[in-house]
Amino acid sequence: MTTDSRTRMIRATARLLRRQGYHGTGLNQIVAEAEAPKGSMYFHFPGGKAQLAAEAVDAFAANVHETIRTLVLDRGSQAEGLAAYLDLVADGFDRDGFSQGCAIATVSAEAAPTEPALAEATGRALRAWTSGLEAGLSAEGHEPDTAHRLATAGVALIEGAIVMARGMSSSAPVREVRQTLRHLLAPPST
Amino acid sequence: MTTDSRTRMIRATARLLRRQGYHGTGLNQIVAEAEAPKGSMYFHFPGGKAQLAAEAVDAFAANVHETIRTLVLDRGSQAEGLAAYLDLVADGFDRDGFSQGCAIATVSAEAAPTEPALAEATGRALRAWTSGLEAGLSAEGHEPDTAHRLATAGVALIEGAIVMARGMSSSAPVREVRQTLRHLLAPPST
Repeated sequence: MTTDSRTRMIRATARLLRRQGYHGTGLNQIVAEAEAPKGSMYFHFPGGKAQLAAEAVDAFAANVHETIRTLVLDRGSQAEGLAAYLDLVADGFDRDGFSQGCAIATVSAEAAPTEPALAEATGRALRAWTSGLEAGLSAEGHEPDTAHRLATAGVALIEGAIVMARGMSSSAPVREVRQTLRHLLAPPST
Repeated sequence: MTTDSRTRMIRATARLLRRQGYHGTGLNQIVAEAEAPKGSMYFHFPGGKAQLAAEAVDAFAANVHETIRTLVLDRGSQAEGLAAYLDLVADGFDRDGFSQGCAIATVSAEAAPTEPALAEATGRALRAWTSGLEAGLSAEGHEPDTAHRLATAGVALIEGAIVMARGMSSSAPVREVRQTLRHLLAPPST
């Protein structure tokens, strides 16, 4: 029961961060969305909203990481796995509107530099994602320097396209970068 | 004098949007940063904070557009001009810390989908940027379909790298996508 309300608060925070960012999300709204007793907030998260948001970014990142890992295994390469991830993202936008963005991109853009706990969480998420992709690209035959450069570009393309989709109220940018991403990250021809 | 306090409010808002986004920026802070009389706010911006922020996004976008236009003319191609723009951005991060992001990316990520005036402004900025780049790439010899796809990818790479830099407290992502961007947008070899 204790664990449950803690988990619900993290999930509610992740949804709210994706929708409206850190500054736009109030503690009362988190507690209401999580259907949690108000007093439980500082019991579970003595560091307050910043700690809760940092844990929500961690949880969101773990979720994305796991989704991508599964897609890469299923499709057989980083390029095809990430292209499939972009399909999921674009389908989500077309189905649900643009209310749910990427929690990592949103918090990075509007809050990370002014809040150390958030900067740690977004930094952790982006470094883990980039280095995981870099390792995958190396394993597929890219030279180390190239793998590093392409991994950064791959994450930037995905995050940039999601931000553009929110700003343009259109899934088109996500669908349009898909082909560039597939081409850019394709295993080197031997 | 009237024009002056209006302009100062737009500039102050643009700075605050870049630093902390729409939800993180309060009217009192804008009025204080702009050194404007408090009563002048609704006189100049009857649509309130949303109108002011939309005009600040427009002004920021016009500024970026003009900077990039000058760099492209000076360097002789879209690819080299945008690479030079990324140098400017990365140097700014190294000099000033990560407090000033891209107002278009920040507002897109955290606020545009929930505020129609902002969605119009970010949509306008991103469409103008993408179609300007597309026209430039076409003029340099890319096929229309390719120019469109590459323009979207170019803007996504730049916006994504800026968001990553904020989230990782490092200018490295901006410097790392520079080479990919130059290569991706290079004029087609004939």
